[in-house]
Amino acid sequence: MLYIIGLGLADERDISTRGLEIVRRAERVYLEAYTAVLLVDKEQLESFYGREVVIADREMVESQSEQILEGAAEKDVAFLVVGDPFSATTHTDFALRCRQSDPPIPYRTLPNASILTAVGATGLSLYNFGQTVSMVFFTDNWRPDSFYDRVAENVNLGLHTLVLLDIKVKEPNLEALARGKIVYEPPRFMTVAQCAEQMIEVEEKRSQGVCGGYKLAVGVARLGSEGEQIVAGTLEELTQADLGKPLHSLVLCGKKMHEMEWEYMRDFAMDKEKFDEIWKRDYAGSA
Amino acid sequence: MLYIIGLGLADERDISTRGLEIVRRAERVYLEAYTAVLLVDKEQLESFYGREVVIADREMVESQSEQILEGAAEKDVAFLVVGDPFSATTHTDFALRCRQSDPPIPYRTLPNASILTAVGATGLSLYNFGQTVSMVFFTDNWRPDSFYDRVAENVNLGLHTLVLLDIKVKEPNLEALARGKIVYEPPRFMTVAQCAEQMIEVEEKRSQGVCGGYKLAVGVARLGSEGEQIVAGTLEELTQADLGKPLHSLVLCGKKMHEMEWEYMRDFAMDKEKFDEIWKRDYAGSA
Repeated sequence: MLYIIGLGLADERDISTRGLEIVRRAERVYLEAYTAVLLVDKEQLESFYGREVVIADREMVESQSEQILEGAAEKDVAFLVVGDPFSATTHTDFALRCRQSDPPIPYRTLPNASILTAVGATGLSLYNFGQTVSMVFFTDNWRPDSFYDRVAENVNLGLHTLVLLDIKVKEPNLEALARGKIVYEPPRFMTVAQCAEQMIEVEEKRSQGVCGGYKLAVGVARLGSEGEQIVAGTLEELTQADLGKPLHSLVLCGKKMHEMEWEYMRDFAMDKEKFDEIWKRDYAGSA
Repeated sequence: MLYIIGLGLADERDISTRGLEIVRRAERVYLEAYTAVLLVDKEQLESFYGREVVIADREMVESQSEQILEGAAEKDVAFLVVGDPFSATTHTDFALRCRQSDPPIPYRTLPNASILTAVGATGLSLYNFGQTVSMVFFTDNWRPDSFYDRVAENVNLGLHTLVLLDIKVKEPNLEALARGKIVYEPPRFMTVAQCAEQMIEVEEKRSQGVCGGYKLAVGVARLGSEGEQIVAGTLEELTQADLGKPLHSLVLCGKKMHEMEWEYMRDFAMDKEKFDEIWKRDYAGSA
């Protein structure tokens, strides 16, 4: 049996007790480490689980999955995923490959916490969220703004938008690659401030009143961990916010922000007076 | 410290290892048992946790919360919640009360699996979901159709809709109440079939092409447990589906259903040929 096991968001202790039992008895244990990362390293996982953990990078999961699946029809293999198993389409694809194997490989998924619901820690109601979008690092010649259309759809319905921020792990250095060498760049994680800047930049270009600097938003970091941090303010203010270490995410607030959501969130405001003023002016009573 | 601890979806082993440590050392342990239920009873939790668990019903959480919070400034109190702590607004309200106490009561939430993301087990991409809605049991004279407007908003954007189904626990019998006696009705849990019927009924009344019998949907039961069950089909077909024991949920598919979502989901179809036919006719190529 292949077990696709969600690890939750913070560290080695967020695995479920059932998940831990399986990890401890499995034949082999893999950790998918390119769509998301935990706040602790592989050694800390290994020490707590009492097992060797093999890092599965994109190359291995997408092109050499037979290696991971080998023998899984007879023996237990654990494939660990940060957050929830279905938080990334790549895991759905992996489960599909199990089913389509001949003979099919039995698999089971163990759900766990995901940023999609942990973001409720901001006080925003999960019922008032629209589609989730992703934000990639802009480069000099690639500044994709397709996220804007989906955020606009949410905004038009008064809904909140969760924005998941880019992470770059194990990216090859292009100069070295040109010289025929593979050298990996240090990992990079987008910050709330970078995301807010990119949103404002795209608003300036598209001008539909979707994500300008005066919109209320909330940045979160390391949700679910003891050091979790939540900062609310206008997007403009958030370009100056420092939420420390990764992972960060951002929520753009929709107009249908209930009084209770506001009451809960204002405690996290960078400037409470301004936060209240904008809420009263642009949001209150729209629900 | 008040710990609001998500239990996940299925049974006593879905708690995180960190959560279990806290439960085992906490002064008192409460289980919120009116917005959702686990698939196991209190005794099974108590035996695994090695602790007495006090059931907190709506009355206790909403009107007698001082009892739960008593001493939580100095000692650890665990408040267990099925799914994720922020899956119901009532828990956000509870955390808010901690903050607004004088002096404030420190609290921490431990995220866990929620139906909002576990529903990814259907193969539908969590990025393609719009707002989540709730479906209540219709009665002879109360058949609220406000869910329809929100589902319509999702449908117009081509998005999937997760429908959470009503549960009734500890509902007083009205006849007995009229005679001055409090007698509780047996718990009731809405099934996928009942939900599909109610959606079709409201479509017949509102007629905007939102949730007619020919729409594709998927019913899920006991997600995250060994006995999880997933059945796909038209809403009409789902009125005949029997997914067994609670809890059930339903997802109405949006037009932006990618080929990979279809490929994954068709294995769950009640009638694969019909499923493919409708997908090709009404959904394929809309993404």
